This record gives sequence, structure tokens and C-alpha cells, in this order.
Amino acid sequence: MLRQEAEQLDQQDLLAAQRHYFHLPDETIYLCGHSLGAMLKQTSRHVTNILNEQWGRQAVSAWNQSAWIDMPQRLGQKIAPMLGANANEVVVADSTSVNLYKLIHAGLMLRPDRHVILTDDDNFPADLYIAQGIAKQHPHIKVVCCSRHEIAHHLNKTTALLMLTQVNYRTGELYDLKEMTMLAHAAGALTLYDLSHSTGVIPLALNNDQVDMAVGCTYKYINGGPGAPAFLFVAKHHHQAMTSPLSGWMGHIRPFAFESEYIPASGMNRFFCGTPSIVSMGALESSLDFLQPISIDEIRHKSQQLGNYFIRLLTEKCLGIHLVSPPDAHLRGGHVAFTHPNAFAIKQALLNSGVICDYRAPDLLRFGLSPLYTRYVDVYDTVDRLADILNKKSYSLYLDLTLAAVT
Amino acid sequence: MLRQEAEQLDQQDLLAAQRHYFHLPDETIYLCGHSLGAMLKQTSRHVTNILNEQWGRQAVSAWNQSAWIDMPQRLGQKIAPMLGANANEVVVADSTSVNLYKLIHAGLMLRPDRHVILTDDDNFPADLYIAQGIAKQHPHIKVVCCSRHEIAHHLNKTTALLMLTQVNYRTGELYDLKEMTMLAHAAGALTLYDLSHSTGVIPLALNNDQVDMAVGCTYKYINGGPGAPAFLFVAKHHHQAMTSPLSGWMGHIRPFAFESEYIPASGMNRFFCGTPSIVSMGALESSLDFLQPISIDEIRHKSQQLGNYFIRLLTEKCLGIHLVSPPDAHLRGGHVAFTHPNAFAIKQALLNSGVICDYRAPDLLRFGLSPLYTRYVDVYDTVDRLADILNKKSYSLYLDLTLAAVT
Repeated sequence: MLRQEAEQLDQQDLLAAQRHYFHLPDETIYLCGHSLGAMLKQTSRHVTNILNEQWGRQAVSAWNQSAWIDMPQRLGQKIAPMLGANANEVVVADSTSVNLYKLIHAGLMLRPDRHVILTDDDNFPADLYIAQGIAKQHPHIKVVCCSRHEIAHHLNKTTALLMLTQVNYRTGELYDLKEMTMLAHAAGALTLYDLSHSTGVIPLALNNDQVDMAVGCTYKYINGGPGAPAFLFVAKHHHQAMTSPLSGWMGHIRPFAFESEYIPASGMNRFFCGTPSIVSMGALESSLDFLQPISIDEIRHKSQQLGNYFIRLLTEKCLGIHLVSPPDAHLRGGHVAFTHPNAFAIKQALLNSGVICDYRAPDLLRFGLSPLYTRYVDVYDTVDRLADILNKKSYSLYLDLTLAAVT
Repeated sequence: MLRQEAEQLDQQDLLAAQRHYFHLPDETIYLCGHSLGAMLKQTSRHVTNILNEQWGRQAVSAWNQSAWIDMPQRLGQKIAPMLGANANEVVVADSTSVNLYKLIHAGLMLRPDRHVILTDDDNFPADLYIAQGIAKQHPHIKVVCCSRHEIAHHLNKTTALLMLTQVNYRTGELYDLKEMTMLAHAAGALTLYDLSHSTGVIPLALNNDQVDMAVGCTYKYINGGPGAPAFLFVAKHHHQAMTSPLSGWMGHIRPFAFESEYIPASGMNRFFCGTPSIVSMGALESSLDFLQPISIDEIRHKSQQLGNYFIRLLTEKCLGIHLVSPPDAHLRGGHVAFTHPNAFAIKQALLNSGVICDYRAPDLLRFGLSPLYTRYVDVYDTVDRLADILNKKSYSLYLDLTLAAVT
């Protein structure tokens, strides 16, 4: 397999030009966009403008003059098309975990006669922790975890919520949201999906799939920045019946009337809590504006091709490393993952060779293939270096390193 | 009273030079720092560095390389001296409202045999809303509101928490935290204070005053930016017994081990929830670093002098407008407030004359006197223009304006 083949694939790539809009680490192959998406060059200008021209010149008046007060809704409207949702069904606020907390509570309100939050045992631990915290506060609520293959069997009349992360954070394996929603609804349960690893890399059709609720982060394939504000989606027909446990002033029907009793706003606004974080939202808006005209189908196509190419090369060139992601691209999200008993040392050896990927204990290597800035030659070169590291066992230099993993 | 007097006060002002570090609206007197503090010029550079040099060049590696992962604790350590707290008792996370939610829950855990959250009926409505939301979820919990003078009478063996905002958001009237804490503790209740209008303008001594818990925003007198992340304080002796209802992964004892069961971290880390918002925290860190060497006693002294001067001039020059803040500076926070039946129109007329202050329904005008960038001549000129507006009734131009208030 020749590098020319990769170069040719890059030449044919309809998304190839997008890479130039990103600020990427120098002389590095960045395969960690599934953890933190790279920065768009325009984001720095956009944030500087918010600081100097808006906060600096207008100060408090910028809440109206520069429409800061509308940002949580406006950003939601910009995310909605990526979700296959209506503009009035999505808002941006807080973190994914805080939003999950709000929507688990809100979902349980709609199923007062049921007590189970059903999820899979390989869901992202952060999501499990939030559900466990709710069960601890409300002892009649139980979190039931099962394998992904047993979900259908566990859905029954005790199930209030089916809570799943669409893309498994380790393996990249995908859930079919339409199928899972049908199963949940057939049992009378509501669905709540975490789309952190999906949004911006997989076409979504939440309304078409009749999904009830969703949350997700914006710092992976949306490239919104480290710890960027998260989004929430609630299907319109549920808005009126749900309220947020975090009944903050920005979710009040008249926040600036300073009334003494909380009355929830109509629509998604009731899921707001505190004052929105404008500087972070500004970075996110820049990336949403950039994504707007780019076809998500084209992104998904390239994501699948990159993954297939990676898997094919790796299978040919690397021994002792095992694919744990689905080989079928239709069943896979935006990253591919492999196991090796010395995964952590290999990750360090790759870093030393100029490739940033990530490691998850105990033995997993994840490679994020972000279609907007990852080239086929990046994949080729990564596999080339990895093969060399494995052949020469040069990772053995790093076997004693203390683990200092990060998201 | 001559303008020269104001000029002389500015010449004697030990904080006068600080103003030059701020980016203030052009040809405007900015008296809204109690709502949104002004931007430091260095903040823009600091944030740009985080974007271009850290996110842009290091991408995901910046979590360790640029110590992003330590920011929530590091910023807490920088706020702690302003609170009179230990470095390990303060962290930065989420919004004030979300943090209040965490600590009301945590406080109620320590008083399981009590069911009342006691607060004053003129507490900031946002805080009341959060408490009401908790009472709604846990029907045995009651929120009891009384006037500030009746608090001592209402503290009894049913009181789990005394929840107060130190500075009244309307009048600027101060609570003596030491006195309120002694009263609460005598009744066996815990204290939870909102220090949003206090931090950075009033010296605080939370440990000395034996305060149990506190929250606060950082976008008023700390100048951390619009919707900047908030802080939480919990006295060390309570850490082990309290947990957060928002049991997110950043509050886990080993967040990067991705264990399936939530185990709270030790110390304040257990109050973290989702991934921290680094860009917003960067803006905040810039302002905290700026504040570090400045004497809070000097700030408080100037704040009181500015307030006294404002009240004295206004009383002399303006008819028909009534002080609602305490005339005694020791009983007053960082802003002064007045009522007038046409307050909203007057606010608009002042804006037209180049003065930004704010309005709270139905009849309140608030003037924030931020000691780091407000001059005595600003106060003089404001009163001068206000006197003119009142004498000529030039505010009548704005009487029909639709109210479009903002925080």
C-alpha cells in the first residue's frame, strides 16, 4: 500500500479545503477531535471581537445591543438542523452533565408511575454518575444497567426512561436511535440520548425518529472549544409538561420582572438556569457559523471512508493490535478504537512520533478521524508510524510511565 | 459644590491609577459595575493566548500542558483570600444558581431532621427560585421567607438552612455575616450566603465568621466577564459529610478511571460536575490575577467614600428622588439606589446624557460605584446631569418607552 494512494484520496476529497480554516498543532497529526475538536482560526477573531468591541465598548449594554441575551436560543437554533430538530426545540446552556440532570428529572416527571432509568452498562460513566445521583436523592428510582443486547428484554412497564449514548465512547459502536426509540415507546418509556460523540459527524433525525429528549457537548466534532456550553433537545409536544429541577432565573417566564415566585418560561427557555456564559458561547457560535453550510452527509461519508481506510491499513500493517470498533462503517461513529496490552505506552510512543491519539484504561487506543481536518495521508502516516513502533517494540521505552490520562 | 472638589478627591485617590487598566465605553460614565464589571485590557490578551497558543497549538494536550485541568481549583485558590477562606475551601464551577442548588442540597443533607430553608423576602429572586425548585422536588422541605428584621424570630429547631444574600440587590443594604451566622448556629441551622454583590468590593472573613457555605458570581466587582463561572465555598469541616446532587464525572474521586460507580472526590472537588469551561475561566483568571495585589480594604474605603459623596451631592442637588440605600456606609454594599416614580424614563435620559446606570421595576435606579474604575468626577458629573434632567423634566421624552430591562 503506497502513500500515493492516500495522496490521491486527499485530492478527490470534497472536504479537503476545510482543513485550512483550522489552527492545528505544528508538525503533528491530530487524531483527538473525538475528545477536543481543533480550533477554527476565525474563532479567535470572533472571541476577541466579543471582548473588545462588545464587553469592552458596550459593557452591560451588550446584553441587548449585541444580543447576548439571545445567544442560548440563537445557538440552539443553529444546532437544531444538525439534530434534525426544530429551531424551538434546542437551546445551549450549562454542561452536558447538568443538562442530563435536568432532563432525567423532567423525563421522570412524565412517568410518575414508573421508577426505572434503563441504560447500558458501557454508557459513558459521567452519564451513569448523574443518574446514580438522582437515584440516591429519590430512593424509589432505580438505575438498571444491562448489555446493549439485553435492552429490549429489560424494557417494560417499570421503565420510565431509556437513557443511552448514541456512540459508545470506547468502541465507537452506534445505536440506531429510531429502532431504540420504537422499542422504548412500545414499552411506554421515554428516550433520552447523549449525542456528544454524534453531533457534527453523524446525520441525526431526532424528530423523524420520534426521540423525546437529548443532550450533547459541543467541543468534539462541533469544535466549540474546551468545556464549551452544551445543548439540550426536548420534543415540542413535551415542553408544556416538563419543568427543570434547576429552576433558575433565566428559566423564569419573566426573568427581569424579579417576581418572588418561580413560574417556568414557555418552551425550551424553562431549561435555562443561571446567567449564560457569553465568552464561551461566542467561541461556540463561531464554529456553528462555520459548520452551517457544510453538508453533514459529506462529513459522514468522509468519516466512514477515513475509518475504513484506517482499519484496512492497520489490519495489513500492524500485528498484535485488535480492532474493537465495528468493521462496518454504518455501525460506527467518528472514531476507531483498538486494544493492545501496552496501549498506554504505545500512545506515548505515537505522541513521540508526532501523532496525538488517546488512551482509555486499561488497554484501549482511540483515534478520532475528524473529517474537516483529518487527511488520508494523516491516516497513512499514523499507521506507518504505529507499525514501526509495534515492529521495533519502541513503545517499551514508555512502559514505566505513570499514567496521566486526560479527557 | 464645585467640580474641583471631585477632581481633588481623584488626585488623592490611591486607586486612581487602576482605571487605566480597564477598557471602558467611550465618552460614557459607566455606573453598572454592580451588574457587569468592566473589562480589563489584559483580559483580551490572556484569552487570545488561551485560544491561539493553547487550544490552537496544543489542542487536547493543553488539558495537561497548559494546566487547564487545574483551573477550577486554581481559580478557587485565587478567590479564597477575598473571602477570608482557605485555598482548599473554594472552587470555581458552573453558575451561581447551579452552585446554590448543589449547596442547598448538601446543606439539607447535614440537617435531615429539619425541613425549613429560611430566607428574607427581599432576597435576589434567582436564589428564591432555586430554593423553591428544591422544595417542589422534596415536598417535606419548606422555603420560609420573612423580612430581614424577623429572621432571628424565625430561626428555630425546624430551620435547616439560613440562606441570605449579603448585599440586597435593590437597596445595597448589608447583612453582618458574623451576626447572622451566630444567630443561625445558636438555632442549630447552617448558613449559606450569596456573595455575588460582595466579592471584590467588601472584605470578607468567612472562616472567622464561621460561615458554613457560600456561592457567588465573578462578573460584578471581580470583572470576570459576562456570565463568567461562579464560585462555591464550603467550610473544611463539612467537606466529608456533604455530597453534590449533581454528581458529575469531574467530581468523581478518579474521573479518568471511568469507573462505573460514582464515588465523590475528597474536598471541594466533589462539587464539580461537568467539563470546565476553559475559555470563560481564562477571562476570569486574568481578572483575578489583576486583583491579587490590590488591597480590598482600600477598595472598600473608596467604595464607601464614593457612595457617601454620591449621596451627599444628590441630596443637595436633586429633588424628588429618594435614597433607599442605607446612608451609613458601613451598612451599604457597592451600589447606591434611589427611587423615583419615573425611574425608567430617568434611566433612559441619563443614558442619553452619557451615563449608564440601571433600573429595577417598578421605580428603582441603581448606581454601581466600582472603586477600580469609577472616579469622583464621574459621580459629580452624573449628579450634575441627573439634577438637570430632573429640573427640566427632560426624562418626560422617555415616559412612553417600552421597558426592555436587562440584568
